[in-house]
Amino acid sequence: MNTPQNHLHALGQILAANEIITDADAMAPFCLDQRRRYQGEVWAVLQPRSVAAVQAIMRYCFAQQIAVTPQGGNTGLCGGATPHATVAGRGVILSLGKLNRLRQLNLADNSLTVEAGMVLAEVQRLAAEAGRFFPLSLASEGSCQIGGNIACNAGGLNVVRYGTARDLVLGLEAVLPNGSLVSQLQPLHKNTSGYELKQQLIGSEGTLGVITAATLKLFAPPQSVCTAWVALGSIDAAVDLLAAVKNQFGERLSSFELISDYALSLSSAYSQLPAPLVGQWHVLLELTDSFAATDLTEPLAELLHQHGWDEAVVAQSHTERQNLWTLRENISAAQRNIGASIKHDIALPIAAVAAFVPACAEAVRARFADANIVVFGHLGDGSLHYNVFLPQVLGNEVYAYEDAVNELVYEQTLALGGTIAAEHGIGQLKNHWLPRVRSEAELAWMRANKQALDPQGMMNPGKLLPP
Amino acid sequence: MNTPQNHLHALGQILAANEIITDADAMAPFCLDQRRRYQGEVWAVLQPRSVAAVQAIMRYCFAQQIAVTPQGGNTGLCGGATPHATVAGRGVILSLGKLNRLRQLNLADNSLTVEAGMVLAEVQRLAAEAGRFFPLSLASEGSCQIGGNIACNAGGLNVVRYGTARDLVLGLEAVLPNGSLVSQLQPLHKNTSGYELKQQLIGSEGTLGVITAATLKLFAPPQSVCTAWVALGSIDAAVDLLAAVKNQFGERLSSFELISDYALSLSSAYSQLPAPLVGQWHVLLELTDSFAATDLTEPLAELLHQHGWDEAVVAQSHTERQNLWTLRENISAAQRNIGASIKHDIALPIAAVAAFVPACAEAVRARFADANIVVFGHLGDGSLHYNVFLPQVLGNEVYAYEDAVNELVYEQTLALGGTIAAEHGIGQLKNHWLPRVRSEAELAWMRANKQALDPQGMMNPGKLLPP
Repeated sequence: MNTPQNHLHALGQILAANEIITDADAMAPFCLDQRRRYQGEVWAVLQPRSVAAVQAIMRYCFAQQIAVTPQGGNTGLCGGATPHATVAGRGVILSLGKLNRLRQLNLADNSLTVEAGMVLAEVQRLAAEAGRFFPLSLASEGSCQIGGNIACNAGGLNVVRYGTARDLVLGLEAVLPNGSLVSQLQPLHKNTSGYELKQQLIGSEGTLGVITAATLKLFAPPQSVCTAWVALGSIDAAVDLLAAVKNQFGERLSSFELISDYALSLSSAYSQLPAPLVGQWHVLLELTDSFAATDLTEPLAELLHQHGWDEAVVAQSHTERQNLWTLRENISAAQRNIGASIKHDIALPIAAVAAFVPACAEAVRARFADANIVVFGHLGDGSLHYNVFLPQVLGNEVYAYEDAVNELVYEQTLALGGTIAAEHGIGQLKNHWLPRVRSEAELAWMRANKQALDPQGMMNPGKLLPP
Repeated sequence: MNTPQNHLHALGQILAANEIITDADAMAPFCLDQRRRYQGEVWAVLQPRSVAAVQAIMRYCFAQQIAVTPQGGNTGLCGGATPHATVAGRGVILSLGKLNRLRQLNLADNSLTVEAGMVLAEVQRLAAEAGRFFPLSLASEGSCQIGGNIACNAGGLNVVRYGTARDLVLGLEAVLPNGSLVSQLQPLHKNTSGYELKQQLIGSEGTLGVITAATLKLFAPPQSVCTAWVALGSIDAAVDLLAAVKNQFGERLSSFELISDYALSLSSAYSQLPAPLVGQWHVLLELTDSFAATDLTEPLAELLHQHGWDEAVVAQSHTERQNLWTLRENISAAQRNIGASIKHDIALPIAAVAAFVPACAEAVRARFADANIVVFGHLGDGSLHYNVFLPQVLGNEVYAYEDAVNELVYEQTLALGGTIAAEHGIGQLKNHWLPRVRSEAELAWMRANKQALDPQGMMNPGKLLPP
């Protein structure tokens, strides 16, 4: 009785014809994740333009037990926005891309209220147009959407200063699985009126509801910038440098990237740019200031010299700064040139990174003697990209070893108090690992959170929670 | 069968004799709230020294359906830590004051792990000793405890720069109502491994579990400071000043206080200090910088002059700074000198404050023609102390008018998108107002959160959720 055809008829009462995609070719890009690891199957992609339509869709799907996979820019790296195999052909994708308006710019509160489907770069642009700065910045910013960023608690380049998406949200509007609306978009900088509901939705990867709009924090735009590259003999020295810079420069530290010499050599060759310095480990750090005339270079040079960190260069021009950042940003592309690798998005207490790197290399090489390991990441947040190449298997066949390599890397990560998901989330890639990361009491609590809002389990099924 | 005597015998297996208080005189200070508005009644005050003992207590009380009221420094202003009348004589106070050790100082991660019972001033002192800064600061810092601060999401003086307690917690350890332990104390600066549980506990006022320890964020200590007093003709001008200062000075703005001329005149007389300037509204603002040599005065003077805000003084010495802050801090004491008032702890979008103040005064005076209204607060956070004196009733009999005055003030607050609880929480003082502030969908979600962890409703009964 309740066939897709019947459902489409009912949904046709809610949405305009051009807001329902059923053509297989047109649906295809929504059904495949960015890394081409997950292929979903749905009978429709819905693209509502209003919150009322999102509510009506959810009410209908809740009543009819139709699986709903919310999707933003479909740029996630863990398959969180691709329909899960367990609900193949039994549900819809709810694409937020057409719900993308500016609701309000509020300079007194330094806030911007936008709908979920707005592309991140557009949010950044609106802030800049208003003489403000929105700091969330990541590789996919030209196509990812702010609703997805919030749903996944995205991180990126400026976390050391401004925090992750979780820290940048003043207010949130969302539709719960049963269709009810929860909306608190007023910019309240202090509020202690009951349980903090928006933080339950942030980072829940669309499993508890659909984010429809958010009020975001804006900041003073950086007017001065100082970008430096420092070569160091050890990660310990990099951690000491980080602590010293943070304590002298305070919030001015906006990036602090760690790069192994091997990662640098790959990127240097790929980018056709010389390595700025010789050393076992490299740090790319950036200081910014809302004052136009602040001299950041002199005090940084002094601090480096005082501590004997003399292998350092400071960018003297926009081009020099660009070149340093190119070396950092091209690491990923340079790796793709070599072949496929088993990637990890881990975070550790910063104090544990120096112990982790050699211990994990030893563990990986005990099992895979010739493994090449590319290490780089946001040391300012304790977050590492830790990628393992097996020189014998440089095609996608390497994924046959994924579980074995993950096991080795995650064991070392967890032993040192780290997490297997720093900024990419869990999705369907890592949910079978969750019981290793979170205790039984935590998982029980998480399941209770889910059960309370989505008792039928139809909201982004197969994601985040362990199978 | 299950008399208090039996329970005491069982709890005597968990705790040492000096960790159980049953003497009425010794229990008295725990049973009365700071404002002397709520008098609780219990058969014991328990003071465990270990997390294992907290777990054992909670397991026992959960099994026996004994009401547990967790308590920190007992400095709350909404009766959240005083046992509720509905469980009079049927439960215990769980005092965290003896669970107060330093667990770990971690300079690489800029973090400090302490137990819940540590007094806030001691946390600040440990940070300072390590050459760091812990920014949470409030009037009761000499006796409030960090666990209570976190449970109530405390605000205070530095919120405009550093956020509330919610923003200062990197990791949390808590015992749930059934006695299970949830612990994530490693300083992880990025983590997207499932639902955010610690933010559910922060601000839940002890109704979902007992916080036993926390890992706190530390910051670079301020080395330069610039304190200024500005007189302005309107709140609109104060809001413009705030936006201009935030956008030029960025994170350097650490306080931005609004004071009405009437509030200043009271404090000036009480403090025996002259008003610094003549004006209808006054702003006390403070800029700080982690650089020792930053000149903040010159750029501030320039900004004020550029915009025509020429009625301004900058403190030229430590004494002048102290005097300006004394005028702000003595407002509360000066009010007590007049008599009792009906106080409000509200927050509004900053953009709405200028509209709120005259509209609310009109509404209050339409009902109470001769009301005197004292307005001051943290404009940088949109948070106002809004206190109404009825000159005919300056004793505690004024509380007979509390509901009527609240109704007027809250109606105006909510109409402009504000909240009735900025930084003091809900407790048992305001929970009957909660249905006016939160929607039915939000309340249902909050009740589901409670039900999942505390199905018997024995964890801090009668608080936060509506009766």
